[in-house]
Amino acid sequence: MENARTEISSLGEFGLINHLTKNNETRQASTILGVGDDAAVIDSFGKQTVVTTDLLIEGVHFDLMYTPLKHLGYKSVVVNLSDVYAMNAVPTQITMSIAFSNRFSVEALDEFYEGVYLACEKYGVDLIGGDTSSSQKGFIISVTALGEVAADKWVRRSTARKGDLLCVSGYLGGAFLGLTLLEREKKIWIENPQIQPDLEGEKYIVGCILRPEARKDIVEFFETSSLLPTAMMDVSDGLSSEILHICKQSNLGCMLYEDKIPVHEESRQAAFKFGLDPTACALSGGEDYELLFTIKQEDHDKLVLNEEISVIGYMTEPEKGAHIITKGGNKHAITAQGWNAFT
Amino acid sequence: MENARTEISSLGEFGLINHLTKNNETRQASTILGVGDDAAVIDSFGKQTVVTTDLLIEGVHFDLMYTPLKHLGYKSVVVNLSDVYAMNAVPTQITMSIAFSNRFSVEALDEFYEGVYLACEKYGVDLIGGDTSSSQKGFIISVTALGEVAADKWVRRSTARKGDLLCVSGYLGGAFLGLTLLEREKKIWIENPQIQPDLEGEKYIVGCILRPEARKDIVEFFETSSLLPTAMMDVSDGLSSEILHICKQSNLGCMLYEDKIPVHEESRQAAFKFGLDPTACALSGGEDYELLFTIKQEDHDKLVLNEEISVIGYMTEPEKGAHIITKGGNKHAITAQGWNAFT
Repeated sequence: MENARTEISSLGEFGLINHLTKNNETRQASTILGVGDDAAVIDSFGKQTVVTTDLLIEGVHFDLMYTPLKHLGYKSVVVNLSDVYAMNAVPTQITMSIAFSNRFSVEALDEFYEGVYLACEKYGVDLIGGDTSSSQKGFIISVTALGEVAADKWVRRSTARKGDLLCVSGYLGGAFLGLTLLEREKKIWIENPQIQPDLEGEKYIVGCILRPEARKDIVEFFETSSLLPTAMMDVSDGLSSEILHICKQSNLGCMLYEDKIPVHEESRQAAFKFGLDPTACALSGGEDYELLFTIKQEDHDKLVLNEEISVIGYMTEPEKGAHIITKGGNKHAITAQGWNAFT
Repeated sequence: MENARTEISSLGEFGLINHLTKNNETRQASTILGVGDDAAVIDSFGKQTVVTTDLLIEGVHFDLMYTPLKHLGYKSVVVNLSDVYAMNAVPTQITMSIAFSNRFSVEALDEFYEGVYLACEKYGVDLIGGDTSSSQKGFIISVTALGEVAADKWVRRSTARKGDLLCVSGYLGGAFLGLTLLEREKKIWIENPQIQPDLEGEKYIVGCILRPEARKDIVEFFETSSLLPTAMMDVSDGLSSEILHICKQSNLGCMLYEDKIPVHEESRQAAFKFGLDPTACALSGGEDYELLFTIKQEDHDKLVLNEEISVIGYMTEPEKGAHIITKGGNKHAITAQGWNAFT
């Protein structure tokens, strides 16, 4: 069965949609009508709805040479849920649209959707609609995620205040290092297909890039500990780029401490192996999908209960600019070195 | 200025987003937060939210050789709003994601967004988010539309009842004929670029394909005349394909009358000129974005007030199948000849 290949044309457009959604489950009480009509219907029960969308293009955002389709499906959902959590909201529904060339089989799409449904299950969201289409070249994925939040609880990027503590969840830089490893192994493999990729001992960083998670737990922690961040966003383009967004949109400066930036021990070792600076990977890498947020100083004690959160600096008046104090005690201006799709 | 070309790389990703959204206006009271954060925030005021999404790919769904970018922007929005109206809902917000190769200039994107904003203005919807990205090849557009509707007013495809009248708004087949004309002129132009396209006298059908409208007026008419369709969908893949959807999903058959199918006089003339059967264009063409719906027989009198609606047949028990009575009095089974992206 492993090599079975069902041509998509054998199902037709509607047959394919039925095939891909036949095991789709509804988990959210707010989902009144899901896949199968002109549109889905959602009841909001007085809460506010959060909407975010992402377009992922083969060759730009992912490389199918080293990205298993199941992981890609999972990650496509997760990166959108991460944006919903970054609003301090709870994701409830997604739509998933895909376009693909005729080199894709039904089995390939099944693998992709296996990952999509796995993410839906893990995060308790409903897949409520989408669109399938052919493409002239490559695989194209468009996801829209909806979430809900009480009217007084959603958090934007522009509302940090001077003196607020700058915090981040989890570890940074791992996804960039995982990508670096996969790109290196790809190059070796292209030059000599006999040599099998050596990913042993690097499961942590490979997991960071191929199977990231959205920080559901952090938003739940905010709720249970009655902690409301003053500003928040997710780290998709690298820490320095995101910090500058919060500074610019909140009209503030900041002071960041290099020794406070959380880098996993396995990332640190991988960085040394590749001759890279671990801090640079955290600042300029991307795709970590951690939450970057600011809190009032008086809320600091509430963080003690959560080892997944690091205080990495504080917000200052805008005139002071955005700076980092290195481990050696030097002060440098923070520049946006985040990933930019257009350069 | 006409030949000004600003490279997108000169703006950067965030500069580009600012540029494209700087004149964006908010029209809906429910739009609490729009473009510029991780996600948009919407208040639903107790109504139910409708969500629909479409992915449009250059070379599959549109041809930039004869599609002005402004029309493409307008149409990309309209086809999604059409799905919202097809639920008997009122569209309120959209997200717009695009990906494009480096052959596109900022001026080209401006033209596209001019059409997007024009549609937003005409239909009173807010653009609240999106994503911009590079593509390896071609222009890719993903739109998600949200709408609202009272809990007891939304209409699906599967709820038609035996004996209901089958109705359609406006005229059918025009978009297919417009496409046929444009494809013909493209072929002539490729063979001999000296010959300028001859679209004079065919403004109606060219307008049908390049600048369709969503039937806002029909949904408003339902509201003001207290008419609730029993089932509804929009005609995007051709009348026969859509009728079969309603039959299948409602578990019914139907009887359709050829002489009742509304074909515009200019479409009829164009069809004869191209040697095509006008009825076949209406049945098997696509992209008309009219509303196909069923109503109870006792509601028939309410239609008299609206010349934009034609009664084209009625629903029967499923055993009778789906048939059309031709002008000559013959009876044929209806087959799905609608546009299929996979064949």
